[in-house]
Amino acid sequence: MAESDFPEIVAPDAGAAAAARERHKSLTKPPGSLGRLEDLSVWVAACQGVCPPRQFERARVVVFAGDHGVAAAGVSAYPMEVTAQMVANIDGGGAAVNVLARLGGAAVRVVDIAVDCDEPLTPAIGAHKVRRGSGNLSVVDPLSADEARAAVEAGKLIADEEVDAGADLMIAGDMGIGNTTAATTLVAMITGTEPVAVVGRGTGIDDAGWMRKTTAVRNAMYRARRHVGDPLTLLQTCAGADLAAMAGFCAQAAVRRTPLLLDGVVVTAAALVAEQLAPGARQWWQAGHRSTEPAHGLALARLGLEPIVELKMRLGEGTGALVALPIVRAAVATLASMATFEEASVTDRP
Amino acid sequence: MAESDFPEIVAPDAGAAAAARERHKSLTKPPGSLGRLEDLSVWVAACQGVCPPRQFERARVVVFAGDHGVAAAGVSAYPMEVTAQMVANIDGGGAAVNVLARLGGAAVRVVDIAVDCDEPLTPAIGAHKVRRGSGNLSVVDPLSADEARAAVEAGKLIADEEVDAGADLMIAGDMGIGNTTAATTLVAMITGTEPVAVVGRGTGIDDAGWMRKTTAVRNAMYRARRHVGDPLTLLQTCAGADLAAMAGFCAQAAVRRTPLLLDGVVVTAAALVAEQLAPGARQWWQAGHRSTEPAHGLALARLGLEPIVELKMRLGEGTGALVALPIVRAAVATLASMATFEEASVTDRP
Repeated sequence: MAESDFPEIVAPDAGAAAAARERHKSLTKPPGSLGRLEDLSVWVAACQGVCPPRQFERARVVVFAGDHGVAAAGVSAYPMEVTAQMVANIDGGGAAVNVLARLGGAAVRVVDIAVDCDEPLTPAIGAHKVRRGSGNLSVVDPLSADEARAAVEAGKLIADEEVDAGADLMIAGDMGIGNTTAATTLVAMITGTEPVAVVGRGTGIDDAGWMRKTTAVRNAMYRARRHVGDPLTLLQTCAGADLAAMAGFCAQAAVRRTPLLLDGVVVTAAALVAEQLAPGARQWWQAGHRSTEPAHGLALARLGLEPIVELKMRLGEGTGALVALPIVRAAVATLASMATFEEASVTDRP
Repeated sequence: MAESDFPEIVAPDAGAAAAARERHKSLTKPPGSLGRLEDLSVWVAACQGVCPPRQFERARVVVFAGDHGVAAAGVSAYPMEVTAQMVANIDGGGAAVNVLARLGGAAVRVVDIAVDCDEPLTPAIGAHKVRRGSGNLSVVDPLSADEARAAVEAGKLIADEEVDAGADLMIAGDMGIGNTTAATTLVAMITGTEPVAVVGRGTGIDDAGWMRKTTAVRNAMYRARRHVGDPLTLLQTCAGADLAAMAGFCAQAAVRRTPLLLDGVVVTAAALVAEQLAPGARQWWQAGHRSTEPAHGLALARLGLEPIVELKMRLGEGTGALVALPIVRAAVATLASMATFEEASVTDRP
């Protein structure tokens, strides 16, 4: 797969956006008084190509699970076995992503892209598996060139499956011990930031863990130093199969003209690569939240996306996007369902 | 009614809060990784006095409608007749507050406290009416001492009615042309802020309107200058019946140990007075959002409340609180429904 394997991204519909802005003027409220909700509603109308927009009926969260050999370097507060256990927890409906998805009217799918386990939890969960754990980016390329391509392709296929099944809003989530180390490396590479300015505490590491993580990021950045403008090689040299699949997923959502909410630092790092793979894809995304990870803010700024909420969350799984989902629904509902000045016989401003 | 008419406020239950913090440690996520959601869930558990907390089943929005004579001074972009028209729109289900309440699982009640109309829209809506429009605070005390007392009492009774009917979460909203002028005056008085630093654009006034509004605020502040520590006289000299009722409502919610979400600058200004009427009441409140009105941020800071969302909204009606409601629900749901490490057989951090 070369960069050109993603077709040119078509922008969301400007006509529907204009109609949405016009409709807002007719609704019984001062112009602009719903603030960000108005912008979000215009974006949804543009993505759907219709005004008023429809409320989302099939919002889908896909959680990309993968292990990272760098976990062996002591960059996480948790042992690697937790990734497979959490895949089972998500499949069983007990994780934070499940609770928030039920509340927000979204369905959850977890996919094993590179979990370090003997067998995927189920054949369906493992249908797109690329390898058993990505390599330790501190010392080797975590993927081969073929694996990086295959992982992007897996994410693309998963997006196609979801859109073909009727998804009208997609959320990408992550699960994997060590995945913030890979994400942080990608963000540092693409934004040209020093490791010490970008490495955060992940799931909650101490100072010694932070130093080990920073060293791992620096090592990977050195190995990848000549590949900043080459998204597939970046994924190969300093990311992992789960992040590569997320990048393919985010890019393909845009190809399929399906709006997508980004979650935390891991998904947003993958989205930075997706924007390189399919320039303009970001027009189909909104940032659900901003986490406490320094790399997350840097990545969002590079993408030009303003987070919807900022609640000091740092869990991943899609939870930050799911907390923002009701706000996007509120945006759609106000534009679609509020009375106009004429309908309600309310006097508009002179 | 004297200040002492509100009994001493009992703090939310510290034992339930401690149990909630303890339960969070057992859930399948890194400790603290749900950020603000964890704090909110602990607060709800404390308010309910039980852990895990229950999801809200009867969230109620009360919109306090009232006109302000100061509107005649040209401080708003809208004519005063809009207040009564919007009461009908809210009663008919077409306003932003209705759309957002339906989406968030809350019921809406609108009360005519001081709308400038011949007859209340319905007897029920007018059951607690204090007067026809509050006076022009730029030139006279907007209320008599008796009216200020009666309006606080009306808000207290409305809170009692709602709690007695089973409300387990309350939201106060506002509707009234000119009400941000009264709210801004209260905030400027209580926080000791210069009018020019606190007056905002309300529903969208131009520079000349802003100057008229600032003059009105300054005039009212001069008249009220000796009453900063006297909440009832402040309401009488520089607020209005709707704000006085909101103050009584917010204070009584705390008396009745019922959690409450504050909305925009008008409700939050009233809450500042409520905290004077019933010290400690703020422990029962969360700030739904922060609007673009400068006075709103000042009032929240004085109350020590951090807004849940910040989306450049400036509509009132309870809309900002309703956008935050799903986030409070998400907080409750994660604490109540996530699997524990033991239940899910997930390895906890060492």
